[in-house]
Amino acid sequence: MTREHADLTEELEIPSIVDIPEDLEDLALGDDYALNPEYVELVIDAADRGDDDRLRELVGALRSEDVADLMGFLSADYREQVIPQLDPETLGEVLSELDTNLREEIMESVPSTTLARALEEMDSDDAVDLVEDLEDDKRAQVLAAMDHEERDAIVSALKYEDESAGRLMQRDLMAAPSFWTVGQTIDHIRSSSDDLPELFFDVYVIDPAHKPTGAVPVSRLLRANREQPLAEIMEPVTEIDVGMDQEEVAYIFDKYHLISAPVIDSGGRLVGQITVDDIVGVIQEETEEDILALAGVSDAGRDATIWGIARSRLPWLAVNTITAATAASVIGGFQEEIGKMVTLAILMPIVASLGGNAGTQSLAVAVRALASRELNASNALRIVLRELGAGLISGLTLAAIMALAVYVFFHDPKLSLTIGLALIINLFIAALAGVLVPIVLDRLGRDPAVSSSVFVTFLTDFMGFLSFLGLAGLILL
Amino acid sequence: MTREHADLTEELEIPSIVDIPEDLEDLALGDDYALNPEYVELVIDAADRGDDDRLRELVGALRSEDVADLMGFLSADYREQVIPQLDPETLGEVLSELDTNLREEIMESVPSTTLARALEEMDSDDAVDLVEDLEDDKRAQVLAAMDHEERDAIVSALKYEDESAGRLMQRDLMAAPSFWTVGQTIDHIRSSSDDLPELFFDVYVIDPAHKPTGAVPVSRLLRANREQPLAEIMEPVTEIDVGMDQEEVAYIFDKYHLISAPVIDSGGRLVGQITVDDIVGVIQEETEEDILALAGVSDAGRDATIWGIARSRLPWLAVNTITAATAASVIGGFQEEIGKMVTLAILMPIVASLGGNAGTQSLAVAVRALASRELNASNALRIVLRELGAGLISGLTLAAIMALAVYVFFHDPKLSLTIGLALIINLFIAALAGVLVPIVLDRLGRDPAVSSSVFVTFLTDFMGFLSFLGLAGLILL
Repeated sequence: MTREHADLTEELEIPSIVDIPEDLEDLALGDDYALNPEYVELVIDAADRGDDDRLRELVGALRSEDVADLMGFLSADYREQVIPQLDPETLGEVLSELDTNLREEIMESVPSTTLARALEEMDSDDAVDLVEDLEDDKRAQVLAAMDHEERDAIVSALKYEDESAGRLMQRDLMAAPSFWTVGQTIDHIRSSSDDLPELFFDVYVIDPAHKPTGAVPVSRLLRANREQPLAEIMEPVTEIDVGMDQEEVAYIFDKYHLISAPVIDSGGRLVGQITVDDIVGVIQEETEEDILALAGVSDAGRDATIWGIARSRLPWLAVNTITAATAASVIGGFQEEIGKMVTLAILMPIVASLGGNAGTQSLAVAVRALASRELNASNALRIVLRELGAGLISGLTLAAIMALAVYVFFHDPKLSLTIGLALIINLFIAALAGVLVPIVLDRLGRDPAVSSSVFVTFLTDFMGFLSFLGLAGLILL
Repeated sequence: MTREHADLTEELEIPSIVDIPEDLEDLALGDDYALNPEYVELVIDAADRGDDDRLRELVGALRSEDVADLMGFLSADYREQVIPQLDPETLGEVLSELDTNLREEIMESVPSTTLARALEEMDSDDAVDLVEDLEDDKRAQVLAAMDHEERDAIVSALKYEDESAGRLMQRDLMAAPSFWTVGQTIDHIRSSSDDLPELFFDVYVIDPAHKPTGAVPVSRLLRANREQPLAEIMEPVTEIDVGMDQEEVAYIFDKYHLISAPVIDSGGRLVGQITVDDIVGVIQEETEEDILALAGVSDAGRDATIWGIARSRLPWLAVNTITAATAASVIGGFQEEIGKMVTLAILMPIVASLGGNAGTQSLAVAVRALASRELNASNALRIVLRELGAGLISGLTLAAIMALAVYVFFHDPKLSLTIGLALIINLFIAALAGVLVPIVLDRLGRDPAVSSSVFVTFLTDFMGFLSFLGLAGLILL
């Protein structure tokens, strides 16, 4: 969890925030909440003059997220002047917000002790994200420079798999036995603020075996009677297994509208908590991965060099070269027909293109339905049949349109019949492939977004050429 | 905001939750958090026997979200037996979770007074969602049957535009003047729990003009000194304008990791709050719309009849018929060349297909970058140039592969040269169109996800045929 200006122990800092001239904050962001280019100029001017006080003032007027944006606009030299002006807490928050490339670059340039201080200020889940990105030797240096308690938290989190609940969770949380009263709990919170997370939304109620049995939202704790035991006001919790995939965690948060949830180990003991603000990031990440995977971009990573981009696109294009060539080879079997009637070569891509588009439509809907679990074993057959019905309607409609258009242009009723029938066949195939391919991939335990497109467009290209040219051979020649 | 079992005033209910036999809850959900088919059978059996007590027990063991899933598995007759077993609060929550179709059907069948009681139990933002879906006469009946305070909240929320912050927000919130101390604030919360939302995460600090000047997270309030004034422990807030689009609201929540935010009217006065759990739904909705729009599904609505599906797909397929025919008409200009060398007809779809796929890749990346504002005025040129560079690399790579393959099959170096050059041209065009089309649409204030694909695939088809056949005419014949 990241949150700005939040540590209670740093009350002294707050007046400085209030002192910032109002105009600076107004100047910083445009109407679209993006950093104003003029503000970047102010920073560059101050850096050119070597005016560290002004730099500190300018950066101080920004929220961490906007400082991160600022870093994206500055060259490495300017960045190196700005970074020393950040306090450890802000530095940690800024690093959390940066793109992987820039983050790695900056972390390598920041001294290990500075980085260690920044990591100590962060929640363990955010700190782990940063430590992961460090080169091995730098990582060892930074961890050695850290306070042992925070270091242990990071080292043990790193043992969990990437994209698992164990990585997402923070270890700091507020837990209380069920026999405690509201008053006891509040007094405990007041007296032990050091061990608690900066912000928390639920008090987890645990049994003697340290297993979570319920949760009390903080606002409810505030309103309840001091004498009431927690057991009386707690609500049931949804436990998250520490090894659960983050996509699954996001699904549960979304389904049950959770704000926070306890994470348990294999023995059912409470080991951490996940909060909804981390989940928002996961949802963005997972749907972005789906969009890119459907479009055939193999790596959603943010390696944004020209070579990195080409590398993320070429694998699927290479596969597509093979499938497109295979589909096109069908045409090779009908060279005689095309030689007799070149019009066939004009019309065949239309059949393939419409099939491809219809298949992509079914596919996108099916992939989303699988991701949101609206499509599952209990209704798969019904949904497949519905898609086929809709595919038939689309096929009949487009067949009528194209048959008419072809008649207008070529005055050949047989040619109209050929393209009409081919479209009906291909749009039926498109609907079938568009919904079945992702379902089958999902059953096989593969991500249905990743390789579905290539199958579906191959099938619609192949069947588009085959049905149209095959029917042409039967009907026309 | 939806949350189960939460009203403090209903403490009497809690023992009944605790009393539910453990096995029923265990039986309800599978490992994937989906409702077990066996559980649905138990419900149907009880309904067949007319055993309302058993029905109530079975439904009572489920969370509202799972009751909503259950509704999806039951026929209308069974649903009508189950619904009367739900208390008003659960009924409201279940309705919130249902798909639009089913929700409308159920709401029309439930008596207006029952619906009015359910709406009264809900937060105003969720209640508005339901009221929106009612037919005019039913809506009037339900509103008339409601308590006037809750009714007023709904009527005034309905005045805000669909998908605006005004619709998302809830009117209940906790606000306090900045000169109040922590102690005063806590005492106020304890004494006036009726006017407060069920759950809240921040106390908004307001000035005498009722404008928000800061916020204090509830967990911080709990830990602070009773004597401290709120002004000393508050943090800055990000205000949301009541007319702001929900996509913009989601962007701000994601960027600043907000848990809740105050909503202000045009005069800057605090009128409501938005909480992150509502935002999770918005993010899912908006990215889902992007995925479907990119695939050419025009209406992300959930009208799931066969006709509804066909209607949501046909508009774009109809447009595609025209663009595919236009692109294919290019081929018509090269009939002579194809007549002389039918091999051209085999290879031309490969050039078009690879261009289309490369264009789709660039497009998906650009649309996501625009949505997450990683692509903006300040870096647009750099990103376009980067795409062009990557497009050139992809083009050169695929050109080499295809030229070699064509030489192996056809032993014609000129044909290899033709397809190689055509691929380089078409993949460059694909990169250019893939990134420029969404940027231009975005500048024109249109949603770049909605109509980009049709432009891009048209351009790559058109240029694929033109470059390959044109070069063939120049080089080969």
